[in-house]
Amino acid sequence: MWTTVCETISKQIGKDRIVRPEDAEGRLISVTGEAMPPVPILRPRDTEELAKALEICSAHKTPVIPMGGSTGLVGGLRHTGKELYLSLELMNQIESIDPVNRVATVQAGVVLQNLQQAAEDAGLSFPMDLGSRGSATVGGLISTNAGGEKAFRFGMMREQVLGLEVVTASGQILDLSNSMIKNNTGYDLKHLFIGAEGTLGIVTRAQLRLRPHLANVNTAFALIPDFASSLEVRNRVEAALGNDLTAFEVMWPEFYEIATRHRTGRLPLPVASGIYLLFESEAGTARDPEAFETAMAALYQDGLVEDMAIAASEADRWDMWAIRNDIDAIIRNLSPFLAFDVSLPVSKMELCVQELETTLTTRWPKTRFARFGHMGDNNLHIVVSIGQDTISHKADISNIVYDRVTVMNGCISAEHGIGMDKLPWFEMGKTSSAISLMQTIRNVLDPDSILNPGKTIEPVG
Amino acid sequence: MWTTVCETISKQIGKDRIVRPEDAEGRLISVTGEAMPPVPILRPRDTEELAKALEICSAHKTPVIPMGGSTGLVGGLRHTGKELYLSLELMNQIESIDPVNRVATVQAGVVLQNLQQAAEDAGLSFPMDLGSRGSATVGGLISTNAGGEKAFRFGMMREQVLGLEVVTASGQILDLSNSMIKNNTGYDLKHLFIGAEGTLGIVTRAQLRLRPHLANVNTAFALIPDFASSLEVRNRVEAALGNDLTAFEVMWPEFYEIATRHRTGRLPLPVASGIYLLFESEAGTARDPEAFETAMAALYQDGLVEDMAIAASEADRWDMWAIRNDIDAIIRNLSPFLAFDVSLPVSKMELCVQELETTLTTRWPKTRFARFGHMGDNNLHIVVSIGQDTISHKADISNIVYDRVTVMNGCISAEHGIGMDKLPWFEMGKTSSAISLMQTIRNVLDPDSILNPGKTIEPVG
Repeated sequence: MWTTVCETISKQIGKDRIVRPEDAEGRLISVTGEAMPPVPILRPRDTEELAKALEICSAHKTPVIPMGGSTGLVGGLRHTGKELYLSLELMNQIESIDPVNRVATVQAGVVLQNLQQAAEDAGLSFPMDLGSRGSATVGGLISTNAGGEKAFRFGMMREQVLGLEVVTASGQILDLSNSMIKNNTGYDLKHLFIGAEGTLGIVTRAQLRLRPHLANVNTAFALIPDFASSLEVRNRVEAALGNDLTAFEVMWPEFYEIATRHRTGRLPLPVASGIYLLFESEAGTARDPEAFETAMAALYQDGLVEDMAIAASEADRWDMWAIRNDIDAIIRNLSPFLAFDVSLPVSKMELCVQELETTLTTRWPKTRFARFGHMGDNNLHIVVSIGQDTISHKADISNIVYDRVTVMNGCISAEHGIGMDKLPWFEMGKTSSAISLMQTIRNVLDPDSILNPGKTIEPVG
Repeated sequence: MWTTVCETISKQIGKDRIVRPEDAEGRLISVTGEAMPPVPILRPRDTEELAKALEICSAHKTPVIPMGGSTGLVGGLRHTGKELYLSLELMNQIESIDPVNRVATVQAGVVLQNLQQAAEDAGLSFPMDLGSRGSATVGGLISTNAGGEKAFRFGMMREQVLGLEVVTASGQILDLSNSMIKNNTGYDLKHLFIGAEGTLGIVTRAQLRLRPHLANVNTAFALIPDFASSLEVRNRVEAALGNDLTAFEVMWPEFYEIATRHRTGRLPLPVASGIYLLFESEAGTARDPEAFETAMAALYQDGLVEDMAIAASEADRWDMWAIRNDIDAIIRNLSPFLAFDVSLPVSKMELCVQELETTLTTRWPKTRFARFGHMGDNNLHIVVSIGQDTISHKADISNIVYDRVTVMNGCISAEHGIGMDKLPWFEMGKTSSAISLMQTIRNVLDPDSILNPGKTIEPVG
C-alpha cells in the first residue's frame, strides 16, 4: 500500500529518507508503552525535501502522521492502517541564537532540552518547560500548543512563537517568518498552525522568543488542610510575589503518596491527608533572596498552611519537581488507567473532584485516583483506574468526566490536545458554527485529508 | 444609495438604530481631527440585532465600516463612498466580573477605562493600557490587537482574550466563548479575528483575563548618553527587576523637548541631548519597596545613566507618563506630520533611526522628528514632518521608512495595524503564499467584501 509512494520518494529524494517498516517496528510511540506498528517512517533532511515528499504523498493520496518526540498523551500517533509516519528527527538544528534581540531560530526537530541549554549558554532562558523536556521537540510543542510548568507566568507554547515556516499538505512552503514581538500586519496566520496537531500543515522551523535569565529562583512545597484554602493561599502568594510567581501547582494527597512511595531520601513533607501545593518564583536581584522565605513564613504564621518546605538548593528544587513530574510512579502504581487533562474554573475544581469521586466510586468501588495539576492555569490532571478492566470502560468513564467538566464551563483538553483519544468528545462545549468553521479551514488547507486524518477535529471516515 | 438598507433596518429592527447622516456628520473619526462624512451610523443594541442588520446589509451588498472609540491611527475609519458606519456604542455593558476565576465578560462597546475601573473595584487589574484609554473600546482593541504600555509584561490585547463572540458578514453568530486560560480543543479560532481589523467578523462580546492587583508600582525616568547604552541598561534593569518590569520605553531628545515645551511645573529631568528612558515595575509586597531605588541608584553609580528621576508619588508617576503619551504636543508642534509605527530588532534601532535621519534631511532639509516607542517590545514610533507639504509626500516618505525597516527585518506595523493608510505597503516583508492564504480566509468568511472593504489586506477594488 505504501510501496509506490516510498519508491518514488526513495528515487526522487534519497533512499535513506525512508526507514523501512522492519527497522521502524517496535519504536515506542507513547509514554505509556504503545509501540509503533510496522509502518515506514519518512525522514526528510530539510524543508524542501519535506515539501517534495508531501507533494508525492498528496499525488498518491497517501496520508502521513507527523511525529515529534512521541511524548503526546492523546493518541496523536495512533495509526489507522493507511498512513506513513513523518519524523523531523533529521531536522534538528538550532540555526541561530540572537542574544541581543533574544530570538532563537530552530528547526522543528530540535529537542526542548537542547534549546533550553542553548538559551542558557547565551545567558538567556527559554521559558517553556515540562517533564518530557528530554524528548519533546519544538515542532511537537508548537503543534500541540504545550503548556507545562511555567505557563502560569510565560504562557503556553503559543506565546513563545514569533514566526513559523510550515509546509502544507500539497507541498507548498508557507513562510511566516517573524522575529518581532509585535507585528500587526494583516492576519496572524501562525496561530492557525499552533495547536492544530499537524492537521493544517507541518511546522518545519520557528523563531522563538527568549527571555532574560533570572538568578533568584525559589521553590516551596506546602501542605494545606483542604482545597478550599488554596484560593486564599493563591491570593496571598500572588499579592506577595506578584509577577515573580512562575508556578502554582496542586496535588491531592493520594498523588503525593503514590509519587513518594518508592522514593529514597528525605521527602519535602510527610505523607498526610491535606492538599499539597508547589510554588516557584523567578526574580531579579532587586528582590531580597530572603523575601520568598518571609512570604512563605507569613502563610505559616497566619495558619494558612499546615506544613511547608523551602528548597535550600538546586538539588532540593529538582527533588520537589521530580515528585510533581513522577509519571513513572503513576504508571507503576495505577496501570491500567485513564488520564484526563481538563480545564476547570478554580471556583469549581473541588466540587468537580468530589462529584467525580462520588460518581465513580459508587459505580466502581475499587476506583483509585491520582489528581494534580497547574491550578494557577485552571488545569487539572485526573488519573483514574477502576481496576484491570479500566480501558474497556473508557467511554463510560470519559463520559462521566467530560460531562461534569463541560457542565462546569471547563473544557475537555487543557494542554494535551484532542489527538485520537478525545475525538469522540471533541464537540462538547463547542457550537456547530465553530466546528463548521474549523472543518472549512481544514478543507481549505488539506482538501484530501493527507495530514493526520481521523485526528483532532475529524472523525475517522 | 443607503436608503433601502436603512429603511429595511429601521423597519425590521427599530428606527432609532440608524443615526441619520445629518446627525452623524462632523463627529471626529481620527485623533488627528479627520471628520466623518455624512453617512448613516448603524447602532445595534445587541448581538441578535447586529446579526439581523448584517444579514440585511449582505443581502443588499452594502458594506459596513466597524467603529470603536475612533482612536485608530491608520485610517481604519476612512470611507470609500459606499459603506455604512457600524458602531457598538450601545453595546457597552460589563456583563460580569468574576473575581475568583478572574474573568471579565464584556460587550465590545465597553470603553477600556471603564473595564480597568471595574477590575480595580474587584481588587484585580486589567493589564492593557494606552493613552486613549478613555475612548478606546474593547472591540477596537481586540480587532486591532492593541499594544500599549504594559505589553512588555502582559502581552498585547491578543494575550488578554480568553473567548469571543463574533458576527460574520452573513449575519451568523459565531460563539467562541471560553473562560479557561488553557483550552486545547481544536483550532483556536479566536486568533483569526484578533487583529483582523473587522474584516473577518464583528467582535461583539469577549471573555477577558484579569490579573491580580499589585501594590508595589515604581516608575523612573532616566537620561542616558546615547541609544547604544540602552542595551546595557536593559540587561541590567532586567537582571535586577526581572519579571517585575512592566514597561521599558525610549524617547529621543527632540521628543522629550517637544513633549515638555509647554508643560508647567517641574520636569522629571532637564531637556538635554541624550536618550530618555522610562521604566516601570509592578511588584508584590515581598519586594522591598526600596529595592527599585537601589537598582536605579546602581545604574547611576556605575555611570550607565547621566541623570535619573524616580516617581515619589502617584502624581509624579502620572506626570512621567503624561510626557510619554503627549500626542497633543506632537500634533501642536509638528503638524502636518506622518506617524510611523514600526517594529525593529533592538540591535538595529539606532542604525535605522540614523539612516532615516540622514536620508530624509538630505532630501528635505527642514525635516523634523519625534521618535519614541516601546523599546522593550521592538516597537518604535517615528513622527516625521518635512514642512507644510508633508502629506503630499506621503508615498515618498513612507517608501523610505518602510524600505529601511523591511531591509532590517522589522515590520511596517507593530501595534497600529494596516487600515487604509498602510495598505500600499502591506505586502512588504510577506510572502505571496502568506498573502494568498489571508485572501482565501477573507473570501471564506466574507465572500462579498461586506466588512471594511479596501482595508487591511484588500486593495480598493
